[in-house]
Amino acid sequence: MRKMRRKGLASMAVQTVASTSNPTVDLGPAAALSCRECGHQVPLGPVFACEECFGPLEIAYDFSAYDTEELRKRIEAGPANIWRYAPLLPVPADVADKPNINPGWTKLVKADNLARELGVTGGLYVKDDSGNPTHSFKDRVVAQALEAARAFGFTTLSCSSTGNLAGAVGAAAARAGFRSCVFIPHDLEQGKVVMAAVYGGELVGIQGNYDDVNRFCSELIGDPAGEGWGFVNVNLRPYYAEGSKTLAYEICEQLGWRLPDQIVVPIASGSQLTKIDKGLQELIKLGLVEDKPYKIFGAQAEGCSPVSTAFKAGHDVVRPQKPNTIAKSLAIGNPADGPYVLDIARRTGGAVEDVTDEQVVDAIKLLARTEGIFAETAGGVTVGVTKKLIESGVLDPSLTTVVLNTGDGLKTLDAVAGTGLTATIRPTLDSFREAGLA
Amino acid sequence: MRKMRRKGLASMAVQTVASTSNPTVDLGPAAALSCRECGHQVPLGPVFACEECFGPLEIAYDFSAYDTEELRKRIEAGPANIWRYAPLLPVPADVADKPNINPGWTKLVKADNLARELGVTGGLYVKDDSGNPTHSFKDRVVAQALEAARAFGFTTLSCSSTGNLAGAVGAAAARAGFRSCVFIPHDLEQGKVVMAAVYGGELVGIQGNYDDVNRFCSELIGDPAGEGWGFVNVNLRPYYAEGSKTLAYEICEQLGWRLPDQIVVPIASGSQLTKIDKGLQELIKLGLVEDKPYKIFGAQAEGCSPVSTAFKAGHDVVRPQKPNTIAKSLAIGNPADGPYVLDIARRTGGAVEDVTDEQVVDAIKLLARTEGIFAETAGGVTVGVTKKLIESGVLDPSLTTVVLNTGDGLKTLDAVAGTGLTATIRPTLDSFREAGLA
Repeated sequence: MRKMRRKGLASMAVQTVASTSNPTVDLGPAAALSCRECGHQVPLGPVFACEECFGPLEIAYDFSAYDTEELRKRIEAGPANIWRYAPLLPVPADVADKPNINPGWTKLVKADNLARELGVTGGLYVKDDSGNPTHSFKDRVVAQALEAARAFGFTTLSCSSTGNLAGAVGAAAARAGFRSCVFIPHDLEQGKVVMAAVYGGELVGIQGNYDDVNRFCSELIGDPAGEGWGFVNVNLRPYYAEGSKTLAYEICEQLGWRLPDQIVVPIASGSQLTKIDKGLQELIKLGLVEDKPYKIFGAQAEGCSPVSTAFKAGHDVVRPQKPNTIAKSLAIGNPADGPYVLDIARRTGGAVEDVTDEQVVDAIKLLARTEGIFAETAGGVTVGVTKKLIESGVLDPSLTTVVLNTGDGLKTLDAVAGTGLTATIRPTLDSFREAGLA
Repeated sequence: MRKMRRKGLASMAVQTVASTSNPTVDLGPAAALSCRECGHQVPLGPVFACEECFGPLEIAYDFSAYDTEELRKRIEAGPANIWRYAPLLPVPADVADKPNINPGWTKLVKADNLARELGVTGGLYVKDDSGNPTHSFKDRVVAQALEAARAFGFTTLSCSSTGNLAGAVGAAAARAGFRSCVFIPHDLEQGKVVMAAVYGGELVGIQGNYDDVNRFCSELIGDPAGEGWGFVNVNLRPYYAEGSKTLAYEICEQLGWRLPDQIVVPIASGSQLTKIDKGLQELIKLGLVEDKPYKIFGAQAEGCSPVSTAFKAGHDVVRPQKPNTIAKSLAIGNPADGPYVLDIARRTGGAVEDVTDEQVVDAIKLLARTEGIFAETAGGVTVGVTKKLIESGVLDPSLTTVVLNTGDGLKTLDAVAGTGLTATIRPTLDSFREAGLA
């Protein structure tokens, strides 16, 4: 009975979609763009806001033709990257043959040492996205945006960024033969400039702060000068955002097609968390995992905790904050998906919590010391929040728990700059013994 | 006929081995240590030099029981890391269940853009080992050393290092629950200290230069104070070195169980190159790839080119040099495996070549610009040498060629520090157009 209803719904979705489809664009199972607020549908294209209500557009799929077992086999026989999930993504079926950076299928590390330290008995895993080509989860979303840009005939891949995104866009564009143009504040630290510049695309310093950079990018998108330009997280945002679904798919497949009981996800714009929830829901609906409850927890740094603050206050809306934290990759003071995050955390029985910068640094060191994983500050945030939520009894240590590490410690070395030598000795055995090292 | 002869040889090896086997140590197919110079065999243990002739010891295997097709299937069904090759490595059969850093199965990137720039028509691939857990190929060798340390009952994992090895040892020891103690010159740059220190093991600064550090480590190994200590590249070196074989295995499997025609490998001690050759030979003997010729090319930086110099001069011995190059991870002035490298390059019809530091930087940028891969200086050396060898007609562009990138550009940012903004503009469309960016 329940199955039939689902099938009915799927068919209905296809019917609705038929009238709005764009026959010139092949993005596989992606059928249309659908407004998250009012449900209005438009054909697939480089648009991101609903023409009716200005709500955010997201991809509507037609998964109606899939047989669960066939789909599972097809995925398992696919490549060791996100394209194994091509049947569930807005990409053409032959996506794996096109030049792309091919991120994903990163390690799900069974973190037994960390579990012991935190008292987790139900199984603790770290999904380590530092293994991606440019060492952050941004490769997942940029890879999606790139395929959308290709489908729409764009020739320039662009973004504003002060960190991980710049490298991901530069690298993906280089591999795919796109021109890239990345906009950054002109006075960014030299190390970050180098990481973005090495891929050889245009790297434009804007005389102004990060807000000025973003304002300029919005202007450019509306101007003829921006024609043919795909801004990965603006006019390609609906496609880009779907890349985060692959984190959910991989976690479940790597657990043996099983849902985790609890997931701890960092919050910047909140998009990653909402798309992980979307991915888990899809797997349940497609019958690839058992339909059982799971809880999603959001993690922020105290210095930029608008969603955590709203969650604790019981609010449905998120009041913007001025970020002040070492976790720069999460420092979005006015997170677009904040309200959706609140909804998901509450609906699944999860929570949103934050930790201080000091706790972030301690958590980076804790993860490195126990599991040999050197995380970016965002990974310190999720591990730190996991620890805090266990101590406060909100996160159940007897359940299977997955913590996301979305970036690489090599990119935020400053955060642990205080770490150093444990001893200094002369090159003699006597000096070695005196230092108590024997 | 040929097959029978092989089988006969294999049985003989087993017989010889039987008398020297160490029944308390289970390292899978590893049967004994065998002197590379005189062939003298000793039981598996933490020794690295022949008691008869002081030649280097290496692992002798018993592969006689393997059926080619069964072995291939077993490998293909294995985990997405080096342990899929456990039947060919000095590790117990259940190695994948033990806590280890699980490196390997890194991407073999089809580098079509780079191929076009270099004029390679036969297929060009980059084996990108920056995808390993601590972002260098050192994770492969350390993972092996760790298993040997476990088998010998060691409790401390140690090394001397100024770079990649320190991080690999720290991370692997952390995951496996070993104590680690890494020795470095006390005045190393702060960034490198942080990368090694974050894993929380002992990090000991030695008042002296890198030679003093190594001298001290040799002393420690011979002293009771060093009991229970596994120095990954000293007393565990025979096991450690075998990790590089996995590069050969992966390249061939990722090519569809096919030998490449040409491989370009960086030379530090030369061990990696010799073990890649050993791995290819094993695959041929086991029937996993077709027996056909391949050429191995060695790559050095001009500022530390003892093997390249000997190759060009037609010498069999390598005269030590004092290193002076930005390619620090290759800066071994007196490479232990130098003579073996010369032998392999000559036997296979390859060559050894070197490039200037300027060419190294250009090659790092070339690889990043064409393929979106940000390589460590060692990757600049191999790409630069590949370019030079094609231009000089030594490397055949019509053949399938694999170039190794063994490390990550994030660890040697200084090398490309000159890379920066391509334009600086005001946040206006007019300024954008004036800069010629439209």
